[in-house]
Amino acid sequence: MYYVGIDLGGTNIAAGLVDDQGNIIHKDSVPTLSDREYPEIIYDMAMLTLKVIKDSGISIDDVKAIGVGSPGAPNCDEGILIYASNLKFRNVPIRAGIQKYVDLPVYLDNDANAAALGENMAGACKGAKHSVTVTLGTGIGGGIIINGKVYSGFNNAAAEIGHMVIVVDGEQCKCGRKGCWESYASATALIRQTKDAAVANPDSLINKLVNNDLSQINAKTAFDAAKQGDRTGQELVAKYIKYVAEGLANIINIFQPEIVAVGGGISREGEYLLKPLRELVRQRVYPLEGVPQTRITVAQLGNDAGIVGAAMLGKIM
Amino acid sequence: MYYVGIDLGGTNIAAGLVDDQGNIIHKDSVPTLSDREYPEIIYDMAMLTLKVIKDSGISIDDVKAIGVGSPGAPNCDEGILIYASNLKFRNVPIRAGIQKYVDLPVYLDNDANAAALGENMAGACKGAKHSVTVTLGTGIGGGIIINGKVYSGFNNAAAEIGHMVIVVDGEQCKCGRKGCWESYASATALIRQTKDAAVANPDSLINKLVNNDLSQINAKTAFDAAKQGDRTGQELVAKYIKYVAEGLANIINIFQPEIVAVGGGISREGEYLLKPLRELVRQRVYPLEGVPQTRITVAQLGNDAGIVGAAMLGKIM
Repeated sequence: MYYVGIDLGGTNIAAGLVDDQGNIIHKDSVPTLSDREYPEIIYDMAMLTLKVIKDSGISIDDVKAIGVGSPGAPNCDEGILIYASNLKFRNVPIRAGIQKYVDLPVYLDNDANAAALGENMAGACKGAKHSVTVTLGTGIGGGIIINGKVYSGFNNAAAEIGHMVIVVDGEQCKCGRKGCWESYASATALIRQTKDAAVANPDSLINKLVNNDLSQINAKTAFDAAKQGDRTGQELVAKYIKYVAEGLANIINIFQPEIVAVGGGISREGEYLLKPLRELVRQRVYPLEGVPQTRITVAQLGNDAGIVGAAMLGKIM
Repeated sequence: MYYVGIDLGGTNIAAGLVDDQGNIIHKDSVPTLSDREYPEIIYDMAMLTLKVIKDSGISIDDVKAIGVGSPGAPNCDEGILIYASNLKFRNVPIRAGIQKYVDLPVYLDNDANAAALGENMAGACKGAKHSVTVTLGTGIGGGIIINGKVYSGFNNAAAEIGHMVIVVDGEQCKCGRKGCWESYASATALIRQTKDAAVANPDSLINKLVNNDLSQINAKTAFDAAKQGDRTGQELVAKYIKYVAEGLANIINIFQPEIVAVGGGISREGEYLLKPLRELVRQRVYPLEGVPQTRITVAQLGNDAGIVGAAMLGKIM
């Protein structure tokens, strides 16, 4: 059997036809044009679904379900998107809306949860009963898989691991709290830290890498400077990885999953990030004798995780 | 049907015959005498089981299983206690040991997990699909119930929520990390904070309450002073409750359980603790529109939670 996974984003709607093992057979996307009213966006989701099925050459009779990963807070049981701020959606009937055009079961979950399910069923966490996927991006996203299923709490709003405070009364977070992990360990936080360090250390390689234009600093800049031996860059990266480690050690102490997969743009640093990260986490997790330890690895599916995971929602139901 | 729950502690072995609803029919205890070799302790556990059944007047044919809650790290699948530092146990076959004397299924789990299961099945969290029990005691213990079952990770070592860092590079914790929640919000932490405040504020009521003998300060002292209008006491309690709230808000952002039950000695402060705590948590949890919120309540079963929860291990298997 096959499944369609739809990754509903603020910029694009991406959909893919996915096989039973989580392989994408064919995928396509259309712009979300997020200012539109929801019936138009749902219509496009349905049409993209039909197009993806058709273009893949698979019969719709062999498609078992459609899964949708969306930002915001879903009511998974009823297939309703309660809200999604970047889409201005309020109580939108995703399931019923798509089923107007396509006669298939429709499942809905949060996009971060879907991505975690994708990694669990077909990516870095394949085979793990319990896994956590952490995305170091604009914010820190999280998805928790327990017993092979998405864990999302009694109100489908769980796994906001980026909003775990690691520094009481620390940096202001956009969620309203102070000291959230994402204020220290997201890509956005690293860019802020890099800018501050560039100002404080005008001779640093960081300034040269961006031609003294601080607005060109991105989440790679500090890593690039560090790899070229720049001391400011190395200190920045070491401090940043320590913040990542503090949050990851918390997650491991709480969940003890077989695998934690680290995704998002920063995970492209690969072992340059992971090697010191594993060591810092090892020093921080609760000491356990004779007990197997969580593995930390890089997420594998990249941007496809949302499509694959959304599709797999149909398989695990 | 009935179940026997055994709460194996460093000081006492407590056992109870428990009915299907989690009510204790009869209970008893014997000293652990923890310096002994494990076969003697297991023998006492088995004999106490038989005595509790006999004294309750229930036929052993109506007893379905024995559950054991123990400190340390269990291998739940195999019924082996990998270690328990306060008992000097290493790879002790609890299940096989008890079954030498009593021909019943034996289940084993961590004591904090067992207590959380007890609260979920017969106490403050009754009826909740997902709940978390937090014990503010010598340390901070945690138990996580997901879909009505104990969640303990792939290695049975999960739910070390007290060892979630809330202040990076903060107070030294005995686990080796710095800044763990339990270093700020356990009863032990409150006692330390109270002593420090008593020294810094010699005119505080705290000093009078303990006749200027700081060694008499306990986890109630600050609350007692606060209730009598002492400013130092009030500031202490406010700061302490804030630390509790920071960790609880993290737990809620991560798990979104229907109910969080707060247990341990400090929970006897009841609404004096819970009312400001709920407000501080409300300000801190990730803002959600139109989504039901976690309830925070006091654990109900007290010291019996371990017996009840251990017994209920037999029911949920």
